[in-house]
Amino acid sequence: MAQANPVYPVIWQTDHVLLIDQTRLPNEYDSVEVHRSEEMAIAIETMIVRGAPAIGVAAAYGVYLGARDIETGDRAEFLTQLEQIAERLRATRPTAVNLFWAIDQMMKVAYYTEGSVDAIKTVLLETARTINADDIRTCQQIGDHSLSILPSTPAKLRILTHCNAGALATAGYGTALGVVRSAWTAERLERVYADETRPRLQGAKLTAWECVQEGIPVTVITDNMAAHCMKIGMIDLVIVGADRIAANGDAANKIGTYSLSLVAKAHNIPFYVAAPLSTIDFAIADGAQIPIEERNPNEVYQIGDTILCPTTGVEFYNPAFDVTPAELITAIITEHGAIAPSELRDRLKAKSAIEI
Amino acid sequence: MAQANPVYPVIWQTDHVLLIDQTRLPNEYDSVEVHRSEEMAIAIETMIVRGAPAIGVAAAYGVYLGARDIETGDRAEFLTQLEQIAERLRATRPTAVNLFWAIDQMMKVAYYTEGSVDAIKTVLLETARTINADDIRTCQQIGDHSLSILPSTPAKLRILTHCNAGALATAGYGTALGVVRSAWTAERLERVYADETRPRLQGAKLTAWECVQEGIPVTVITDNMAAHCMKIGMIDLVIVGADRIAANGDAANKIGTYSLSLVAKAHNIPFYVAAPLSTIDFAIADGAQIPIEERNPNEVYQIGDTILCPTTGVEFYNPAFDVTPAELITAIITEHGAIAPSELRDRLKAKSAIEI
Repeated sequence: MAQANPVYPVIWQTDHVLLIDQTRLPNEYDSVEVHRSEEMAIAIETMIVRGAPAIGVAAAYGVYLGARDIETGDRAEFLTQLEQIAERLRATRPTAVNLFWAIDQMMKVAYYTEGSVDAIKTVLLETARTINADDIRTCQQIGDHSLSILPSTPAKLRILTHCNAGALATAGYGTALGVVRSAWTAERLERVYADETRPRLQGAKLTAWECVQEGIPVTVITDNMAAHCMKIGMIDLVIVGADRIAANGDAANKIGTYSLSLVAKAHNIPFYVAAPLSTIDFAIADGAQIPIEERNPNEVYQIGDTILCPTTGVEFYNPAFDVTPAELITAIITEHGAIAPSELRDRLKAKSAIEI
Repeated sequence: MAQANPVYPVIWQTDHVLLIDQTRLPNEYDSVEVHRSEEMAIAIETMIVRGAPAIGVAAAYGVYLGARDIETGDRAEFLTQLEQIAERLRATRPTAVNLFWAIDQMMKVAYYTEGSVDAIKTVLLETARTINADDIRTCQQIGDHSLSILPSTPAKLRILTHCNAGALATAGYGTALGVVRSAWTAERLERVYADETRPRLQGAKLTAWECVQEGIPVTVITDNMAAHCMKIGMIDLVIVGADRIAANGDAANKIGTYSLSLVAKAHNIPFYVAAPLSTIDFAIADGAQIPIEERNPNEVYQIGDTILCPTTGVEFYNPAFDVTPAELITAIITEHGAIAPSELRDRLKAKSAIEI
């Protein structure tokens, strides 16, 4: 097993945030310094940082960086300006709820902290760093919990995943790839099959890259090969991440996840969603209410400098996410263990108890 | 409706074959002259000409071009050399049966024609030209027949197709896109949704290009969006081509077709295969016996000059086709009308009657 330094896509450094520039991977491993809230908003929009938990952590730092630049000493005026900063960050991407969750956590702290504006700023940085550290621990817990629920046979599993729900998509370790990492460490993993994940190819670019860093065996396939691979017996289970899970267990995730859940069902292959509880949006009854981001058509018709198809006289549709209905999800693996999607409502009743 | 010259990817011109170079579309519309059998074999292997019916037609001309270059006047020696030419052409691609069917037609003619070697050569050219002309007529008949079986509502249909089963994939007009063309002419078509069809992107490159030539409204999506489009009610039916259909109705077609058939079934959307009877391989009982071509991994990891993902320490799997089981196919639309897959065996009994 190759050893590698853990990947942390969002790191606080003295007075700024360092982001791994995920738009340049795997060809270049580069970092971007973020000193201001607006820079963070742009980094989220342009997907320098992406992945639901990671953009939550990044947005939390974005709130702090914005707070730091507010020049007033007046508490009310400070909070008014901070709301504008939060609003700008909320507008960056619509689907992943972790973004809104993290910003809300930060805003609550701002309102609840007593004392001077400087005191609030200090607590905001502490809170962002806590959200950051918590996310890494949460991912490790997800990975640990998964070991008790993974199928007991075969001894070494062939796991298919979609997009990148890895260290790069979180503060570190990953959700779906956290499960993969834990299975690898526990010698329960044979191989990862990574859907390339068109249009932005996060599976080919990021998941394959993460696996290579740690010497985890990985095979990249195009998205449309998954059903064929299942049919000929190459896949034991599917694990994906999630950008937002409704109270009934419907889960929004990268476009193509829904398709994958249907084909897994057709082959009786378990289909797991790995996500922190912060991904569950108890305010939303079902998946139909989750806003689905549409992105620029050029993601569909252009790769690198290559224009793939005629662009005049042709339309494109580019939804970035789709919704997998709860009944197609075997279990949601969280930091509190695996939950059947139908049991989420009970968790909702116990919401305060588990400090969501 | 824009008017355009019909597209004929394989044309006989005086003493050679002119192929549209489909590897350069849509950026360049270029033709390649083929004067020798070996050039035709390479054109098929490198997918200058592709699509099951089109490579059948191309291979027929390939047999003639090879025959023309045989210098002996001795009939037995001529046939021996012609067998070698046929063998070379058969080895170009394994999955599409039309290739083998057309070569077999040519070889039968060579054996059955009486008289001199020159007489055989003359009949071989006539036979290739007949196969060529028949294929265009067959596609038009497929299109015509489809009109009576397309769903009656909505009045204007939104048809999803995969890969390119168009004029470019046949001698002209197309199979799945033949149905689209007939529906468009009959004012039954609202819009084509074209799966881009990774890895080689024939949907984005070729199907979109064909639609643009004729002013047919077309939207390109990535393959993994099809299920989401169905779920939100954007698709009325699916039509695809086929590379080989077993006697039980199982159909091999471009990778991703099987996945599409599963997701169509999950949404109760009709799933049609449009193919000439020459695509049916009555010698094969079911789809498990259809050889599936695996192509170069670089088709998965490279587009244009762009390397999509790490290539060291990563494996790739690149099956070019998959098999859709008969029970997921609503009907097979042939030049003799629509056939339920389960009825193919009866057609087998009547095989000689319909001159397959």
